[in-house]
Amino acid sequence: MSEPIQGPKGTRDFYPEDMGVQNHIFDCWRKVCRAFGYEEYEGPTFENLELYTGKSGAEIVGQLYHFKDKGDRDLALRPELTPTLARMVNQKGSGLRKPLKWFSIPRLYRYERMQRGRLREFFQLNMDIVGCDTWAAEIDLISAVIEMMKEFGLGEKDFSIRISSRQVLSEFLEGLGVPEDKRASVYSALDKRAKIGEAEFCRLLEKEGLIKRNIDAVETFFNCKTWEDLEKRLDQFKPPGGWSSAIGADALKWILERLGDLGYQNFIKLDLSVVRGLACYTGIVFGVYDNAGNMRAIAGGGRYDNLLQNLGGQPVSGVGFGMGDVVLADLLKEKGLLPEGRQGVDYYLADVLTPADVASAEDLFGLPQKELLHLAQVLRAKGRSVSYSLEVGKLKRQLAEANDQNACKVIFFGSDKAPIGSFEVKDLSSGEQKVVGESEL
Amino acid sequence: MSEPIQGPKGTRDFYPEDMGVQNHIFDCWRKVCRAFGYEEYEGPTFENLELYTGKSGAEIVGQLYHFKDKGDRDLALRPELTPTLARMVNQKGSGLRKPLKWFSIPRLYRYERMQRGRLREFFQLNMDIVGCDTWAAEIDLISAVIEMMKEFGLGEKDFSIRISSRQVLSEFLEGLGVPEDKRASVYSALDKRAKIGEAEFCRLLEKEGLIKRNIDAVETFFNCKTWEDLEKRLDQFKPPGGWSSAIGADALKWILERLGDLGYQNFIKLDLSVVRGLACYTGIVFGVYDNAGNMRAIAGGGRYDNLLQNLGGQPVSGVGFGMGDVVLADLLKEKGLLPEGRQGVDYYLADVLTPADVASAEDLFGLPQKELLHLAQVLRAKGRSVSYSLEVGKLKRQLAEANDQNACKVIFFGSDKAPIGSFEVKDLSSGEQKVVGESEL
Repeated sequence: MSEPIQGPKGTRDFYPEDMGVQNHIFDCWRKVCRAFGYEEYEGPTFENLELYTGKSGAEIVGQLYHFKDKGDRDLALRPELTPTLARMVNQKGSGLRKPLKWFSIPRLYRYERMQRGRLREFFQLNMDIVGCDTWAAEIDLISAVIEMMKEFGLGEKDFSIRISSRQVLSEFLEGLGVPEDKRASVYSALDKRAKIGEAEFCRLLEKEGLIKRNIDAVETFFNCKTWEDLEKRLDQFKPPGGWSSAIGADALKWILERLGDLGYQNFIKLDLSVVRGLACYTGIVFGVYDNAGNMRAIAGGGRYDNLLQNLGGQPVSGVGFGMGDVVLADLLKEKGLLPEGRQGVDYYLADVLTPADVASAEDLFGLPQKELLHLAQVLRAKGRSVSYSLEVGKLKRQLAEANDQNACKVIFFGSDKAPIGSFEVKDLSSGEQKVVGESEL
Repeated sequence: MSEPIQGPKGTRDFYPEDMGVQNHIFDCWRKVCRAFGYEEYEGPTFENLELYTGKSGAEIVGQLYHFKDKGDRDLALRPELTPTLARMVNQKGSGLRKPLKWFSIPRLYRYERMQRGRLREFFQLNMDIVGCDTWAAEIDLISAVIEMMKEFGLGEKDFSIRISSRQVLSEFLEGLGVPEDKRASVYSALDKRAKIGEAEFCRLLEKEGLIKRNIDAVETFFNCKTWEDLEKRLDQFKPPGGWSSAIGADALKWILERLGDLGYQNFIKLDLSVVRGLACYTGIVFGVYDNAGNMRAIAGGGRYDNLLQNLGGQPVSGVGFGMGDVVLADLLKEKGLLPEGRQGVDYYLADVLTPADVASAEDLFGLPQKELLHLAQVLRAKGRSVSYSLEVGKLKRQLAEANDQNACKVIFFGSDKAPIGSFEVKDLSSGEQKVVGESEL
């Protein structure tokens, strides 16, 4: 006997109990996506490497599982689904009527240092609207993410959606006279702000050459918590010629108002420090955060107006978000909102053998009787899930198996208490035991 | 604009219509597995390479997508799930109560020459019973596979299950005096028999040094189509000392009888030429074949009593089968048994704008009204799937979108035919149009 082989680091085995949890999460995701009229799609697990390296400088490229196939082509396990979405939409071009509302539950792969909530292989819900230029897309997606969290049993005490606008941020920095080549450093500092703290954040800005007045302005700006606050600051720091464009601020205002109209005001927080990475976002960005537990990000997304074009397609806009399974499952587990135990069957058929039967059954290597197999067939045809002992032995052992399999009811097959055409049935949760006709099963 | 990037060879993109087909297949697989009391599990997409190379000589090793991670560990995308199953069962050891009835729908990867029904990335249903030594396991799995094919709408005219026994075959060759080191060549020839024809098959056996009498015996043996035929041949070719063991034949007989008792006689065919690869099978083997179309194999499996032990675990027996999605979908498509088109929504909310509204809506960049968003929210809370135009324009354009989205019903929001609290609704399949109260939606 050789040494047992282990599974790879950073991956998970899903035993039936774990799979019950996964299926609960997937079912809930699918249910809400479908209620909102999103259609499911999927792509390949690996893509040509260039699909990811094209977005130069993306942090994700350093985390790729990259390999060559036997035709010497460079491939990579997908680290995210959006490039695949862009490729698929680009390939069909105008054959797809826009806007598209699509969702997917891909398995994704990132080679990264393992820590809580991070694995090298995980699942992620992706919801995207492609080809919609109105802010109705943002409303639709943010409503969906709130309804999804509620569907899991989470309420306004548990999570919040923090909303910002890359456009407002960019306009604000432009208005302050921060040159374009410095703005990326500000975003980068901003992305680290929650981790490094305000003091360190200001030091970073100083290092980048921002003058005191601008650092103060940026800091005040990021501390705005309401639309009224923000409006005041936009007024206070208005550049001599006025703001170049007010569209970013108008969008943000309209979206906050409309989400309030829909009764979501207690889930929504304006938070201009939300950046959601440095990637492709061009407009509204948002993140779903756990209200306790160090503000863990459960989901994040925003508007990316140039992504499809950057990947070789038409200039088609997009809005989308991703929600991973790992952090979500941790949160749901903490709140006691995950199903536990095995899924179970409706009926377990236990064979009530007489001592004579036992002898004969043993002769037959413990094979189940054909009449019992037939009953299983009849019940399954009625839509019931049914199991029975595959190695018939003592009744006690069969009942232990029924319990282990989390059966709802046990049928005592061959019980002398049940006349022909009827069965003695025990409900394992209530303990109730009675004789019922076949039609009642 | 750069050249659009393509997806990798041998992989598929699942657009919403394709995903509808996939989900139909997955749902049907899951439904029957659960009815039979099988529990779902999953493993990682990639495993340590040694999990596959350990089974020396397997054809599958030449088809692996193999790569190194950044820690220089050798990994491979899984070409099949059974080694993962064995690893998972071995890792928990006696902590898992046997027998286990488990199923999974893994995505699998094989680098092979592309041809009809073969892709480099595909899905496969795996159903396995681990730790059951009685033939009840074979009955349970073969019954499940038949019920599954019926669930897809296929009948006895469409497919058959061909059953053989590696044990009977091995005993037969032993009885004929074919030495053990020649038997592998016979299996290999047998595996090619359907492709190369009987004449070429006999020539191969001759080349392997089998004498004329044995070639005739093997040929007669493989042509047995019923249990009675086989019994006659076993008698005819009985070696001087009798058969070393009759267990293989007894099992085959009992299994054929019991499947007949369950009403499956027209689905079942004894066919000793079924080998199902050269891998790990030790007892009953079976394949599900398309009755037309060149006998394509839709599924295949059998008993593998040594696999878990070979992979470093306890000597625990297993029976299982795999059914790929590609050949199955081809067959279902040919028979017209696949769903077509997009999944659709229950309601599409069309905004009946007055000319004045249109002007104002255009001012607002075509944003939907808040009352319409509220109605969508109310209907979704009732469990309905709802969509609406994200860029409100002319009614005609909205109705075209509703049709394109395969909506069941359109609500004419703001129609002057509907008093307050009621809505004008059109059923898009019947064309019927009427005014109903909100509670009836």
